[in-house]
Amino acid sequence: MAFKIGLLGLGVVGTGAAKILLDPVGRHPVVGEIEIHRVGVRSIDRPRDVDLPPHLLTTDLESIVRDPEIDIVVELLGGLEPARSLILEAIEHGKHVVTANKAVIARFGDEIYARANEKGVYVLLEASVGGGIPVIKPLKQSLGANRITSILGIVNGTTNYILTEMTQKGADFAEVLAVAQKLGYAEADPTADVDGLDAADKIAILASLGFGGRVKREDVYCEGIRKISAVDITYADRLGFVIKLLAIAKDSVEDDSDTLELRVHPTLLPKTHPLANINGVYNAILVEGEPLGQVMFYGPGAGSGPTASAVVSDVMNIVGILQSSGKTATLDPLLSCTHQHYCQIAPIEELYSRFYARFLCEDVPGVIGHLGTAFGDHSVSLESVVQIGFQGGLAEIVVVTHNVREGNFREALRAIDSLDAIHSIPSILRVL
Amino acid sequence: MAFKIGLLGLGVVGTGAAKILLDPVGRHPVVGEIEIHRVGVRSIDRPRDVDLPPHLLTTDLESIVRDPEIDIVVELLGGLEPARSLILEAIEHGKHVVTANKAVIARFGDEIYARANEKGVYVLLEASVGGGIPVIKPLKQSLGANRITSILGIVNGTTNYILTEMTQKGADFAEVLAVAQKLGYAEADPTADVDGLDAADKIAILASLGFGGRVKREDVYCEGIRKISAVDITYADRLGFVIKLLAIAKDSVEDDSDTLELRVHPTLLPKTHPLANINGVYNAILVEGEPLGQVMFYGPGAGSGPTASAVVSDVMNIVGILQSSGKTATLDPLLSCTHQHYCQIAPIEELYSRFYARFLCEDVPGVIGHLGTAFGDHSVSLESVVQIGFQGGLAEIVVVTHNVREGNFREALRAIDSLDAIHSIPSILRVL
Repeated sequence: MAFKIGLLGLGVVGTGAAKILLDPVGRHPVVGEIEIHRVGVRSIDRPRDVDLPPHLLTTDLESIVRDPEIDIVVELLGGLEPARSLILEAIEHGKHVVTANKAVIARFGDEIYARANEKGVYVLLEASVGGGIPVIKPLKQSLGANRITSILGIVNGTTNYILTEMTQKGADFAEVLAVAQKLGYAEADPTADVDGLDAADKIAILASLGFGGRVKREDVYCEGIRKISAVDITYADRLGFVIKLLAIAKDSVEDDSDTLELRVHPTLLPKTHPLANINGVYNAILVEGEPLGQVMFYGPGAGSGPTASAVVSDVMNIVGILQSSGKTATLDPLLSCTHQHYCQIAPIEELYSRFYARFLCEDVPGVIGHLGTAFGDHSVSLESVVQIGFQGGLAEIVVVTHNVREGNFREALRAIDSLDAIHSIPSILRVL
Repeated sequence: MAFKIGLLGLGVVGTGAAKILLDPVGRHPVVGEIEIHRVGVRSIDRPRDVDLPPHLLTTDLESIVRDPEIDIVVELLGGLEPARSLILEAIEHGKHVVTANKAVIARFGDEIYARANEKGVYVLLEASVGGGIPVIKPLKQSLGANRITSILGIVNGTTNYILTEMTQKGADFAEVLAVAQKLGYAEADPTADVDGLDAADKIAILASLGFGGRVKREDVYCEGIRKISAVDITYADRLGFVIKLLAIAKDSVEDDSDTLELRVHPTLLPKTHPLANINGVYNAILVEGEPLGQVMFYGPGAGSGPTASAVVSDVMNIVGILQSSGKTATLDPLLSCTHQHYCQIAPIEELYSRFYARFLCEDVPGVIGHLGTAFGDHSVSLESVVQIGFQGGLAEIVVVTHNVREGNFREALRAIDSLDAIHSIPSILRVL
């Protein structure tokens, strides 16, 4: 028996998915039971990298989400609209949905899952985080016995490629970004990647799954990598760290309440940390729970083939369920979104972190005393203060703090910034 | 609605599972719907590390697999019998089965899955490979869109701990084994671990899932780590390798047929390989497929909490299915074992590998010529021949070959062994 899918979008991922479905030999037998019924595209005549019968193509996307013959709608358009409206309309028409769209799910997951639950359809999204890495389904189906305590991810391949190149070649951000754009690893407008917005979408989704509550996308604190300099990478290296853009969701340990820490920012990671060696466009997600301990999922975080693998696996899951239980079954609580409440997110000022800060100063001996006093006045205890070099006649001092309240640290910085001897504070980074 | 489980065995893993189920707060809500109905133990009076009502315990294991109130039987006895018979009897009585028993599944999976399919029940086994690492379910549910080309695993924590300690401390096998036994990382009888039998059970299971065919356990070629010496670890290090016990299942690329390579042996891994940094009791499984590329699953390969996490997640999966589709549904083809045929396994002599061999010889200059000629006579081409040291008045020569047919390599070794100048061949290892 064939199950019919409607594909919205035939870009890089859609093409990859179509290639898998048109060539099922050697894959799981369920792949052979999936039939591409319609494909919605922007332009019919564009040359394609996959050999689909032309009569399957249409520019009328709405006709696909309404087509009574279609069991599963696969949304691979990206962007917020018309993706959101088409997903909602597909649900209204009783279709299961598979999507790779982290932006839509992170912002409109609430609305989408509420309607999907009412209509008794699945909305699966493995491809939305980590490309080909199985991580959404393992979180739903394999780790639910645990109390998840933290999820740390390198979930944006573009920024990880840039930081890896900067680290290995000593190059500056702008330089590497230009190369990445040439190679197709970064978009012409790199904002979503380099400012951490894409990673923020993804950690919002992972947090919701791991901590069993809805998450407001705007609650994710977010800093990108534009300000990371080759100098900081070198100093971090000397101190035993690498710099990675981490997406972090964790139980806030500083209080007993149910609040979460939720943030994306460049982070100094000890070189021995499991995520420190994840390089280039690879992604990895490290999940910690009780009684499990740490597990890590590693693989290609983007690309046609890997992302298509995740998309088709979601379609296969739905087909497997339809084959076994039929269309009238209620939703499996592990595969659907059952939570209704919102997670409480701790304000960034309340979080405790270690910090790395680099200062350019006039007069070294006096300044170290002033720095120490200013930090001490705001209850910021220091792990190390190192005069690490000179730059343009100014002394460069690097400070690493113990675990301190971010609000206090910021107040200390304001006080320090007003000192006469302080020329500037070029870098402030968090340390894991 | 509560779903009732019968637990067979209350050892390390059974106790861990019971602890999770008795303390559901903060876990997925489905955990709270699982009720421990009966627990089969060898001795009722033994002190336990978990607070179970005494009336749940029984020494009559058969009564559990026949109990009409029980939905799911969780087999955590280990060993072949009575585990096999109890699993089969549970299936006959229409119960779903969750097991952590790799030995039973690797040897009797055929019989067990045939009966399970007839009776329409699931037999899930996440905990049988990789402890708490989600790998079985991802193989079934997330990677099926791919043509799997290889599965490489560090799947035995005991041997990985021993090899890691030998590498980091320069210690010898016997020494480290004794420490591992004291620490509880190795059993009093370490045979199943150090001879690779446990890893062979696990790769038989992974191969069956990844390559979609049944696998005969006796087809797995198996070498353990007893012969690995500190000297070989040092030489490997100098050549840029670490030594790991790898379990390998891969498409045999040397022919066009559908045969598999299936083997467990110590392997020299380049230090840059993703598995080279998996140390101590941690496990990792690297899966390669088309179009996915490489993904890796990493985490604690054993222990009460991690293994219990995997066991309870399997129970939750079955409960999720029962809640959504009821007991009359047919089996989901992704979660059940659908294949009937056996994979064709290539004989070890036919495989192509790189080899590392260490020779002790009388007279160096002449011998290198003899070695080269003997290898050449058997079509074994060499990548490097290095006189690496002296030992007891004998020269030590290390040879690394290119990718060569194992049968040819063995014949060359026989010829070399008969040379007058060759004192002995203390080590023969494969190189990835």
